Amino acid sequence: MSAPRILVLSGANTNLYGLDPAGPYGTLTLDDIGDACRARAESLGGTVDFRQSNHEGVLVDWIQEARTQADGIVINAGSLSYTSIAILDALSAVNKPAIQVHVSNVFTRESFRHHAPLAAAVTGCIIGLGPEGYPAAVEALIRRIRAG
Amino acid sequence: MSAPRILVLSGANTNLYGLDPAGPYGTLTLDDIGDACRARAESLGGTVDFRQSNHEGVLVDWIQEARTQADGIVINAGSLSYTSIAILDALSAVNKPAIQVHVSNVFTRESFRHHAPLAAAVTGCIIGLGPEGYPAAVEALIRRIRAG
Amino acid sequence: MSAPRILVLSGANTNLYGLDPAGPYGTLTLDDIGDACRARAESLGGTVDFRQSNHEGVLVDWIQEARTQADGIVINAGSLSYTSIAILDALSAVNKPAIQVHVSNVFTRESFRHHAPLAAAVTGCIIGLGPEGYPAAVEALIRRIRAG
Amino acid sequence: MSAPRILVLSGANTNLYGLDPAGPYGTLTLDDIGDACRARAESLGGTVDFRQSNHEGVLVDWIQEARTQADGIVINAGSLSYTSIAILDALSAVNKPAIQVHVSNVFTRESFRHHAPLAAAVTGCIIGLGPEGYPAAVEALIRRIRAG
Amino acid sequence: MSAPRILVLSGANTNLYGLDPAGPYGTLTLDDIGDACRARAESLGGTVDFRQSNHEGVLVDWIQEARTQADGIVINAGSLSYTSIAILDALSAVNKPAIQVHVSNVFTRESFRHHAPLAAAVTGCIIGLGPEGYPAAVEALIRRIRAG
Amino acid sequence: MSAPRILVLSGANTNLYGLDPAGPYGTLTLDDIGDACRARAESLGGTVDFRQSNHEGVLVDWIQEARTQADGIVINAGSLSYTSIAILDALSAVNKPAIQVHVSNVFTRESFRHHAPLAAAVTGCIIGLGPEGYPAAVEALIRRIRAG
Amino acid sequence: MSAPRILVLSGANTNLYGLDPAGPYGTLTLDDIGDACRARAESLGGTVDFRQSNHEGVLVDWIQEARTQADGIVINAGSLSYTSIAILDALSAVNKPAIQVHVSNVFTRESFRHHAPLAAAVTGCIIGLGPEGYPAAVEALIRRIRAG
Amino acid sequence: MSAPRILVLSGANTNLYGLDPAGPYGTLTLDDIGDACRARAESLGGTVDFRQSNHEGVLVDWIQEARTQADGIVINAGSLSYTSIAILDALSAVNKPAIQVHVSNVFTRESFRHHAPLAAAVTGCIIGLGPEGYPAAVEALIRRIRAG
Amino acid sequence: MSAPRILVLSGANTNLYGLDPAGPYGTLTLDDIGDACRARAESLGGTVDFRQSNHEGVLVDWIQEARTQADGIVINAGSLSYTSIAILDALSAVNKPAIQVHVSNVFTRESFRHHAPLAAAVTGCIIGLGPEGYPAAVEALIRRIRAG
Amino acid sequence: MSAPRILVLSGANTNLYGLDPAGPYGTLTLDDIGDACRARAESLGGTVDFRQSNHEGVLVDWIQEARTQADGIVINAGSLSYTSIAILDALSAVNKPAIQVHVSNVFTRESFRHHAPLAAAVTGCIIGLGPEGYPAAVEALIRRIRAG
Amino acid sequence: MSAPRILVLSGANTNLYGLDPAGPYGTLTLDDIGDACRARAESLGGTVDFRQSNHEGVLVDWIQEARTQADGIVINAGSLSYTSIAILDALSAVNKPAIQVHVSNVFTRESFRHHAPLAAAVTGCIIGLGPEGYPAAVEALIRRIRAG
Amino acid sequence: MSAPRILVLSGANTNLYGLDPAGPYGTLTLDDIGDACRARAESLGGTVDFRQSNHEGVLVDWIQEARTQADGIVINAGSLSYTSIAILDALSAVNKPAIQVHVSNVFTRESFRHHAPLAAAVTGCIIGLGPEGYPAAVEALIRRIRAG
Repeated sequence: MSAPRILVLSGANTNLYGLDPAGPYGTLTLDDIGDACRARAESLGGTVDFRQSNHEGVLVDWIQEARTQADGIVINAGSLSYTSIAILDALSAVNKPAIQVHVSNVFTRESFRHHAPLAAAVTGCIIGLGPEGYPAAVEALIRRIRAG
Repeated sequence: MSAPRILVLSGANTNLYGLDPAGPYGTLTLDDIGDACRARAESLGGTVDFRQSNHEGVLVDWIQEARTQADGIVINAGSLSYTSIAILDALSAVNKPAIQVHVSNVFTRESFRHHAPLAAAVTGCIIGLGPEGYPAAVEALIRRIRAG
Repeated sequence: MSAPRILVLSGANTNLYGLDPAGPYGTLTLDDIGDACRARAESLGGTVDFRQSNHEGVLVDWIQEARTQADGIVINAGSLSYTSIAILDALSAVNKPAIQVHVSNVFTRESFRHHAPLAAAVTGCIIGLGPEGYPAAVEALIRRIRAG
Repeated sequence: MSAPRILVLSGANTNLYGLDPAGPYGTLTLDDIGDACRARAESLGGTVDFRQSNHEGVLVDWIQEARTQADGIVINAGSLSYTSIAILDALSAVNKPAIQVHVSNVFTRESFRHHAPLAAAVTGCIIGLGPEGYPAAVEALIRRIRAG
Repeated sequence: MSAPRILVLSGANTNLYGLDPAGPYGTLTLDDIGDACRARAESLGGTVDFRQSNHEGVLVDWIQEARTQADGIVINAGSLSYTSIAILDALSAVNKPAIQVHVSNVFTRESFRHHAPLAAAVTGCIIGLGPEGYPAAVEALIRRIRAG
Repeated sequence: MSAPRILVLSGANTNLYGLDPAGPYGTLTLDDIGDACRARAESLGGTVDFRQSNHEGVLVDWIQEARTQADGIVINAGSLSYTSIAILDALSAVNKPAIQVHVSNVFTRESFRHHAPLAAAVTGCIIGLGPEGYPAAVEALIRRIRAG
Repeated sequence: MSAPRILVLSGANTNLYGLDPAGPYGTLTLDDIGDACRARAESLGGTVDFRQSNHEGVLVDWIQEARTQADGIVINAGSLSYTSIAILDALSAVNKPAIQVHVSNVFTRESFRHHAPLAAAVTGCIIGLGPEGYPAAVEALIRRIRAG
Repeated sequence: MSAPRILVLSGANTNLYGLDPAGPYGTLTLDDIGDACRARAESLGGTVDFRQSNHEGVLVDWIQEARTQADGIVINAGSLSYTSIAILDALSAVNKPAIQVHVSNVFTRESFRHHAPLAAAVTGCIIGLGPEGYPAAVEALIRRIRAG
Repeated sequence: MSAPRILVLSGANTNLYGLDPAGPYGTLTLDDIGDACRARAESLGGTVDFRQSNHEGVLVDWIQEARTQADGIVINAGSLSYTSIAILDALSAVNKPAIQVHVSNVFTRESFRHHAPLAAAVTGCIIGLGPEGYPAAVEALIRRIRAG
Repeated sequence: MSAPRILVLSGANTNLYGLDPAGPYGTLTLDDIGDACRARAESLGGTVDFRQSNHEGVLVDWIQEARTQADGIVINAGSLSYTSIAILDALSAVNKPAIQVHVSNVFTRESFRHHAPLAAAVTGCIIGLGPEGYPAAVEALIRRIRAG
Repeated sequence: MSAPRILVLSGANTNLYGLDPAGPYGTLTLDDIGDACRARAESLGGTVDFRQSNHEGVLVDWIQEARTQADGIVINAGSLSYTSIAILDALSAVNKPAIQVHVSNVFTRESFRHHAPLAAAVTGCIIGLGPEGYPAAVEALIRRIRAG
Repeated sequence: MSAPRILVLSGANTNLYGLDPAGPYGTLTLDDIGDACRARAESLGGTVDFRQSNHEGVLVDWIQEARTQADGIVINAGSLSYTSIAILDALSAVNKPAIQVHVSNVFTRESFRHHAPLAAAVTGCIIGLGPEGYPAAVEALIRRIRAG
């Protein structure tokens, strides 16, 4: 079997992770998280393509690419997680195993963050485990793809 | 009277039509639908400008262009149909006859697809008639424009 | 193939169309619309049986007749469109292709007209195109029946 | 000026008024109420056409007749008061002064009787004054018609 | 039997009736309406005590007075009609026949005017008959008191 | 004691039972069910009057007849079960023991079938036991009438 | 065929049936009802295992036992009927024919008793027929099991 | 203290201001408004960077820039005001004083414009004062920044 | 043109501003704010009549006075902002330009403060700018009155 | 320590307590209750200032007085309990220990009495214990004040 | 009269009171509270049976015991207060005077704690007075029982 | 550092995992899952105490034990996940790191499974990853405990 290719996408405002030490997202930057994802994937014989955008349309384009260019998707849509039907439909159309990550525990934040529309289009969710949620999702996805 | 110019817009994820034979959208691609629209328009003495984007902002830009570049609009906003106030406001501001198309019968799908915000800003809707909804809308629009 | 038989039904208060020139339904009477439907059907090699009633029970009886007497149904239930489960169930039980017509754009009227229970029991809807919605629905239905 | 013609309509289950002495509607039958309406109208130089039906469609037919056959409408739709869009639309289309009567105070009964859809299509309402609400409505209507 | 004493109360902003000829309340002032109420009561052998206040507390005080000083209450609470539990409770505690008047048809105005909390504490309501609703309520109340 | 007379009513679209072998209502027709009801009643010394209509008004007329012509009512209002206040009020006015039957388990179907307005006007309900619900209701009613 | 084994379960507060003569549950105790169930089952060649508990967890344990120890379940969960997802899931997992019994007509009691979550996990419901609902459910279940 | 730098952002469809003389936004174009903002800022010793986009993602990018390039933000998100969590989160993350402007009084328009999610992430709002809301917001922001 | 007369009203509990240094309203008292309003008005050639009351009825009386005694109204209804239909109706009846002020950002406080009924009866709102919102509103109103 | 001063306030319609022997409030008048409060306070070394008003504004004025004139507040706002934000805000601003009293058990009355906005601004509530709730609240408050 | 017997029940998680000094429940343990209840009852000539369980079923069993073993019930159902219909029904069936205690002010905590189903089945509630709420409830109950 | 002790709890109906090969939970039994948890913990130098109960009260008791007997909690409350405030409060009171596991993707099942009350009392959630969610949670918890 060839090396599983995991597309890891981060959405609106996730590029600010780690830049505000007093904020709710800790001190790891998105670059640090990307490194952790790649390291985890390599240790399991897979590869990671790690991207970020604040634009919903760009995320949709990238998810559509995954139809031919990836074996699984990890997505933290950031601020777009709570409203985007376009990302929901793109994930459904691509029909690859996918795991949604929320870095913080959204269920202890404002009530509009408790809705989880994307959750209906993914295999599973990892919520509230901090930046470690990303590599954990990469690992779970590679194991699932290998298990076939 | 000069030839009516119809701007036909397709939104998020509509570029996947026909690519997944097992999906709910049949085997016609968006290119096939564009050809059908152009053929229908020509047979009625009109022209079609056929475009697609997954980006809400791009669709808004294109609708604004129609203020001076088109005589009517056919719009299937795809995944953006259920939430976009920006497209709603752009359609209202342009103030040209417009018909909204839904390829599938949204009223037999998930409940969040039953809301129809755009419907308040268009002349009418054609829903559930499959890809044929596009050329039917083009025809209805040209007849309406000619009737003045 | 024998000529497709289309049953065209109009419900409560539709018999007032065209009688009030200042109202929202234009100057075409229901008789005019019936003529347009028959003409459109004949041009396509089909036939139309055109009926109106203000009584929900009569409409249900007629829809049930269509099980053996028609190949498709066009229905504008008029004032009954927003509440009738009986028409919804009759349409579902008959299991023939059906198109719902709304003459006006119900989505720009009172909010209780935005609900569309019947829409779940029909193939598709044509909304807001005025009286032309009727013959357009007849045509779409005949094409669909011929395409089999 | 000719004598104002008032159409007085009573809907579903109102024909049971007065038949159950222990019920909430007193001991006057609908016939008694009809007599009271005719007497009141005659004393004011008007006439009353008094009818009852349990069928929504029949009530709609009768309201439509009023377009040419009456100068005002008193309607107590009975059990149909809480749900009928068809009666609402018929009253709106006829465009004659109309007064809705509720014999009992609906606001002290079950909550589903607190909705008043018909109220949006009539000139006014008389609620909770018992059978006397009928002739009071006839009088108010004749005065209004005479006042022009 | 002594002459029935009717307390007629008008609430917040009703003192502006008739002052704005372009407004929804016609050209009769509250003084005119008071005269009409007194005339109607006298013709039926009753008396009217006619008062107005923009203060909810004052209206409550006056309703409580009616426990010993009046035989029936006509109340148009004006702007306070839609929210005042204090007036509702005062009317309930007084336990005299009472009729609520709305000069305009509240059911064709903003939706927050469709709620009718006071209606649960009165005998009946007269809605949408214009200023004539006042003397009509006085008459209905005197007839009811005399009938015992 | 004379033989208990049971009026068994079936409402909108129930006349299609058994006609569509693939549908959710099995292969027994309404005629078969009527036979089963009569047989069960006779075995218990009672009689059955079995009727069907798609018209709400007709059902109301029939229920009103039961005031003098029947000792108990079994009603499956079919598609009218979910919305009819007129049937609810008629059942309440008649004041005879009554059992509502749903052939299918409405609680596993669309959510609009979960509301049970009629249930407030009957003695009890038998839901989801298939066509056998009818004779079971006849039996329960006769036993209850005999027990007095 | 061996004798059908019916597990009859009664939940929270049902052990008080019949102990309060003025209450809504008549004078039959739960022991009386158990006797009636056993008698009815024996007359049809079946057996009944009759149990009661106020503990949701105990009811779940018992339902799980039915996977191997019973052919059908009659359940009146009592006060737990309105909220218990655990009983709902246990009934679904066991996958045996089951009938839910409500002794009183829950639809004429407080609104929180109108919800029927368990109804989605059972074959059918018998509501409002008093203690007789129990043996009637036993009979219906045995007939259904025998019919296979 | 250096000159306060104010970033003034306008969102979807605001570029149409003033282009439609019959519309609700007057005759001032967005360029006119930009000039007014710059003039006001200069008179107070500040500077203005004035930008517009129909793209939510672009607005998010620009707000993020403000972390290092601006001392305060004026934002009229236009059509995106009612739904964008991404702009809400970006404003929160930037943590600079910010004032939201609505040119029209949104509370007298459609109900979906009454929700104000962005308001939770800004210092204050200026609503319904027309184009003058922009320079007023610039002034208020500069005063606040100077006051420290 | 004569000097514009601005009526500035403050409602329930606003008289506590500045008295609690730890509260959300800063250290300026309502007297300080009145001085600031008068100073601002004088610098623009206008006058201010500054009043406060905890009584809704008094505020309604004062707003009605403005029909003849003022050219514009600034109102911060304080605790009455969230519920008072009487103030809403008085402002509508007076029909003078009016600006509502909220000293704090109500959208970051309890959810019952997010409703803004008064906003439908005023020209515009200034929210969250602290005590400075008052003179800013006075200035905006005078400029608008002068501009005609 | 000086004697704790307790301000005991009673709101709209509470002055009717005991005047209607058949009502839900028993036979103790508000004067009797005041005596009981004073006696209880004296026995504990405190004093009571006992007042009543039907006017919300007066209650707000009195609560504000407590900032300097009382050590604790007992409040039964009567009919104003269910809607008054002004009383809520006044209690919050005063920041003294406070106990809300409901004489009857509001949770067994109409549903609009189940909301308890004031409860968020007081230390605690005593509900449904009849007139004894007043002196019990006085005692609890004095004990709490003494305990510091 | 014999000594009143009070059953004092504490539900889920109340056994943790006082164990977490930083928590919202102070430093008194449930044992301390039991001592206070017994002392208060003895001083008034009554007795207390004080029990705790985390199991809803056990609480229901104990409440049912009170039918013959107690004269009144004090219940703080703890975490079960917000959802348990079983406790509600048990309290109703027992039909003894009962007082519900909440140690903290639930109306200032999460919104799901604002619902008070049990309140409909008890005589009254004491909320937010801390551990003292327990003995206060015991006292109120004994006084009420003695008063008969 | 001593070996982290992880308490792994499974709630109502989870003991049926793997017993129904056609069900949604795969073929692993709860025993298999316990073995996987213990193996994972041992490989990381920790220990697992693995328990299951269908009783909410038992789960609450066990969670309370964790205050002194465990360093972290993994909980899959099974059918109790959607309603139990008692488990929510117990988890909050224990104040140890905790991870909630859902074996299936609850967001693609019935809507009542989309609510996640427990989520507010745990560190994070792992949803939809099948039985592997258990050992993944154990691992995440041990890493977090070691990281301090």
